[in-house]
Amino acid sequence: METQLAWLRTVVLVLDLGGTFVFALSGAALGIKRKLDLFGVLVLSVVAATAGGMMRDVLIGATPPAAILDYRYLVVCIIAGLALFFLHPFRGQAQIRDRLRTPVLVFDAAGLALFAVAGALKALAFHLGPLQAVLIGGLTAVGGGVVRDVLVSEVPTVLYSELYAIAALAGATVVVVGRALNFPSDTTAVAGAALCFVLRLIAIRRGWRLPTAW
Amino acid sequence: METQLAWLRTVVLVLDLGGTFVFALSGAALGIKRKLDLFGVLVLSVVAATAGGMMRDVLIGATPPAAILDYRYLVVCIIAGLALFFLHPFRGQAQIRDRLRTPVLVFDAAGLALFAVAGALKALAFHLGPLQAVLIGGLTAVGGGVVRDVLVSEVPTVLYSELYAIAALAGATVVVVGRALNFPSDTTAVAGAALCFVLRLIAIRRGWRLPTAW
Amino acid sequence: METQLAWLRTVVLVLDLGGTFVFALSGAALGIKRKLDLFGVLVLSVVAATAGGMMRDVLIGATPPAAILDYRYLVVCIIAGLALFFLHPFRGQAQIRDRLRTPVLVFDAAGLALFAVAGALKALAFHLGPLQAVLIGGLTAVGGGVVRDVLVSEVPTVLYSELYAIAALAGATVVVVGRALNFPSDTTAVAGAALCFVLRLIAIRRGWRLPTAW
Repeated sequence: METQLAWLRTVVLVLDLGGTFVFALSGAALGIKRKLDLFGVLVLSVVAATAGGMMRDVLIGATPPAAILDYRYLVVCIIAGLALFFLHPFRGQAQIRDRLRTPVLVFDAAGLALFAVAGALKALAFHLGPLQAVLIGGLTAVGGGVVRDVLVSEVPTVLYSELYAIAALAGATVVVVGRALNFPSDTTAVAGAALCFVLRLIAIRRGWRLPTAW
Repeated sequence: METQLAWLRTVVLVLDLGGTFVFALSGAALGIKRKLDLFGVLVLSVVAATAGGMMRDVLIGATPPAAILDYRYLVVCIIAGLALFFLHPFRGQAQIRDRLRTPVLVFDAAGLALFAVAGALKALAFHLGPLQAVLIGGLTAVGGGVVRDVLVSEVPTVLYSELYAIAALAGATVVVVGRALNFPSDTTAVAGAALCFVLRLIAIRRGWRLPTAW
Repeated sequence: METQLAWLRTVVLVLDLGGTFVFALSGAALGIKRKLDLFGVLVLSVVAATAGGMMRDVLIGATPPAAILDYRYLVVCIIAGLALFFLHPFRGQAQIRDRLRTPVLVFDAAGLALFAVAGALKALAFHLGPLQAVLIGGLTAVGGGVVRDVLVSEVPTVLYSELYAIAALAGATVVVVGRALNFPSDTTAVAGAALCFVLRLIAIRRGWRLPTAW
């Protein structure tokens, strides 16, 4: 039991740091697209990558949040932000908005998948019920992107984009159902993240949308 | 004493769920007005209805927040969102913005009233002082609307609208003063909510405004 | 040891109330600039002045936050808001935007400096590590301004402005290093706040910027 909990903590940490990295890339890409300077790009990386996890930790009572206690979160954000800032290959002014559209979407989808799963697992580890764990997973996944988009005055992706929150909730549900069936956490985490990521990318590709009121 | 506390919890729950329902309607109406798809409308319903209560619960240390622990909050949000999405009678593109103005305002005023009172009562139940309870009541009432408006890039109602925060603080004050005078919580809750709702509607109707700096 | 902790609490309180006052002025100035009415101006004062400290207190687990528990924070906000609303000397419509630019920037820089230092000291008092204290100091300093700007749909200063977050982190670092070297908290607080304030003002004056990606 003890070792299982330690293993669970490791799984959450790996998923969390992975999600942090890709969400930081999505924040950096948005910052570059909006022509922020280096520090603005880094701030947006950090916010995009840590806001969802900090909401999760505050809501489940795990304060101070992991992103503040554990310096590796910040290091991962800074590395991701610096890497994209200095290494991105888009030099011409004209096509940059278009060129950065796809990276933002793909990084964002990967972060969504990893955080949905990490959020649900951490909520379960804090003894929240199954529905609560799914909701916390969804909030962890969409939270960072919402704050990222609001900061640059864009309507957040979650409000209009294809199957965004649904994909996150689906990924979190896989983890919670897997736990109820006593499947190993690492397997269900991979399955849940894969489901969320694939769902989201197919939805973008095919332009799947729910109906609007007219 | 024990039964009184249980009764207080019931009063807070009823007010909370009522406020959740009407704020969810306000969020859904705003989402429909902004032509979000079904899921965007539901997200905006949930956010408008739960953000204020979650801020309250985080600030008074009641984590995880009621809106996450108790599945009825979410069910109420989804029902309100679905109902307005499918049943609203405004089919023509042209007049929808105008037609939905009044429902958003009325639902919002009702949610303001119920949450101001519920927030103040819950803060008192968590042994906060009278001034703190009034402030927490005000924040509970305006919080959801602020997040709702910010998410669709509108300046929040509380910053420019007629007696918005004042009405919420007035409603919360009735509850706190009533508690100090040992009046029953349910009676003062009804009185406080009525005062807030009526104040706000009259202020909208008459266009009551405070002076601007010029 | 006991008296040292009491002295530290006093230092944090004085810095906090000072930062509250100047950030409230920055919020009021922005509200007047955006032609909000009296209550909107007061709401913006309160939000600008208390949001950073409330984030800090929620993240370090010091709930309810000082700004809610201690009525002096609110009184300071209201006084600052009323004073600027009624006493500001800018009567002509035309030049007001320009005239209020500098006060917003200077008040904001002073608040940044005081909150960076107060945030780091409070985090240390809650036994967070040195890196955590620097981060919490930075977040305390920039948090209120971010919420203030987002509420009126402006891209927050921290994302594009000259050495904004860097100045805050530098001020917080002085406090944390000073504590490690056993310097008295009040001296390092003054030194850290002065460094942050001067860095920020010089950066504005000289237009120091980091490079953008092109």
